[in-house]
Amino acid sequence: MEKYDSIQPIRWSRKGLLLLDQRRLPAHRVELCCRSASEVADAIRDMVVRGAPAIGIAAAYGVALAVRSRYQENPESWREAIAADLDILTTSRPTAVNLFWALKRMAALMVPDGEDPVPRFESEAIAIHDEDIAANHRMGELGAALISEPSGILTHCNAGALATGGYGTALGVIRSAFAAGKLRQVYADETRPWLQGARLTAWELEKDGIPAQLIADGAAAYLMQRGMIRWVVVGSDRIAANGDVANKIGTYGLAVNARHHGVGFMVVAPTSTLDMSIASGLDIPIEERSSEEVLNFQGISIAPQGGTAWNPVFDVTPAALVDVLVTERGVVKQPNREKLIALMAKG
Amino acid sequence: MEKYDSIQPIRWSRKGLLLLDQRRLPAHRVELCCRSASEVADAIRDMVVRGAPAIGIAAAYGVALAVRSRYQENPESWREAIAADLDILTTSRPTAVNLFWALKRMAALMVPDGEDPVPRFESEAIAIHDEDIAANHRMGELGAALISEPSGILTHCNAGALATGGYGTALGVIRSAFAAGKLRQVYADETRPWLQGARLTAWELEKDGIPAQLIADGAAAYLMQRGMIRWVVVGSDRIAANGDVANKIGTYGLAVNARHHGVGFMVVAPTSTLDMSIASGLDIPIEERSSEEVLNFQGISIAPQGGTAWNPVFDVTPAALVDVLVTERGVVKQPNREKLIALMAKG
Repeated sequence: MEKYDSIQPIRWSRKGLLLLDQRRLPAHRVELCCRSASEVADAIRDMVVRGAPAIGIAAAYGVALAVRSRYQENPESWREAIAADLDILTTSRPTAVNLFWALKRMAALMVPDGEDPVPRFESEAIAIHDEDIAANHRMGELGAALISEPSGILTHCNAGALATGGYGTALGVIRSAFAAGKLRQVYADETRPWLQGARLTAWELEKDGIPAQLIADGAAAYLMQRGMIRWVVVGSDRIAANGDVANKIGTYGLAVNARHHGVGFMVVAPTSTLDMSIASGLDIPIEERSSEEVLNFQGISIAPQGGTAWNPVFDVTPAALVDVLVTERGVVKQPNREKLIALMAKG
Repeated sequence: MEKYDSIQPIRWSRKGLLLLDQRRLPAHRVELCCRSASEVADAIRDMVVRGAPAIGIAAAYGVALAVRSRYQENPESWREAIAADLDILTTSRPTAVNLFWALKRMAALMVPDGEDPVPRFESEAIAIHDEDIAANHRMGELGAALISEPSGILTHCNAGALATGGYGTALGVIRSAFAAGKLRQVYADETRPWLQGARLTAWELEKDGIPAQLIADGAAAYLMQRGMIRWVVVGSDRIAANGDVANKIGTYGLAVNARHHGVGFMVVAPTSTLDMSIASGLDIPIEERSSEEVLNFQGISIAPQGGTAWNPVFDVTPAALVDVLVTERGVVKQPNREKLIALMAKG
């Protein structure tokens, strides 16, 4: 049995940044090599790599690539020269805040005058990557501890190894719960239109031998009505200071249904996903992608010629519907502004 | 502009029953000809024809085909001989009660001894078909009258001309609302796994020039949160005596979200969809179809090899979440057992 450890969505090499092409999974396992910041930005925009923490990590390596290249071009002016690369990375996708968090951390890196900046930037990107994996393992333990008995769990989209540095946020909790004997069955929403659940989550769970069944997104409420799950466990792309949670489109409707059925709603995200600069979820920019993602499937048209679609790819779940937020710094029940300020103060 | 009148999903001819193959829409417009009851049963099972009223109509014609063939074989024993044909039709699909309603009505047809039964059975099937179209136009008017101002409307699955004898139940209301200037914009859930919304509803609406946008099923709650719709309008496959509504998987989750957002939830169904023999929705048999419908899309695998899926194709919305039921006999607000008994007594 292949384990998640062997799923390396992001690998740093002397050649460049190797990204497992998530558009082609599960049928094809192909790595793309990005040799510049702009190639990394393209890979983020085109969803070669997706998932908020993974986007942040990829962007950090993108900065390392930019520094390598700009320093080679001119050891005097690399700092000014990377500004354009940072801009390109910044505008690759709008919703996941981990992208901006990682870019800010990389841009703030101090390098003594005259020192080759490349090793320092490489190390920082690797540190961001390693810290994310460690955070996921910690969140896995904390989240699994909240599950009191062998339960059915529903997850939406992919918040697994593929969406992070490794192990996963929501799937980290599911992996830890499985290891602790607290998991009866995972249900995975297929997650239209991009089918992250079908193509990525089901693939990860199958590799780990965790019992998983795929469902159409519309079947989730019926699953709750029949008492088949105790928890909905999801990741997040950005959490506002008041605890509102942006995540894959469909998450909000699940949260409403979870509350209606008395099913727990757990959000699992590292503190790099918290955006304390934004007061509420209303201020989180929601990406709308091409209608073609809804109108076509792998080149096959599934709608009438000339049809139109609306394709917002995230939604915002108000904090009031979140039962518990799991971060690497600790667990926050019924998150609100005061509790998140206290959490971040733990530093 | 082609109009719904030209969409004839079911046509009776001397050759047999012509069914527009709904599996191949919108890319291909192909009619299949069923020459026997068992071919009609296959077409229902394989979803050449789908939608509760349409299934009932097709089954009625299937009985006419059986009578034609059995009477030709032996004018003395045709009545006994069609019992097997009725059985085959009865077991084609389990949830839509219109199937059983139509078969019962056909089976009860009295024919004087010695008379050729064929014209009488043909006329009865045609009457069931015509009455359904008339009922849809009546429901269209009644439903549209409930919409007070130009509104956004969300519909799920296909309850249109293709799901009925013509005009449609939910889409009948949408057509009438559009004609009355009460419709701003229709949103159509794509309705996984079979994509009735993308393939059929969007196609019908486009033909009528009704402004429609397709959305992923998961986007519906976000649509409500943003105040973009005032009504969810759906059809039904079976309504229990207490007003619980079975309909396409995903309907129940929409109803929970509609209530949460103060969005109206309207069910449009002819009285042939009411099953007064069943006390509550708990007793409605819910069809589970092959997991392959979730794991594959038009022959392309979308999940890992060896993956499993759960594929219930209907769910049950409790009457308490239904704001209004529109039938051809009248409108029932907050349906319950007493109100439905009174409705059926109108005869």
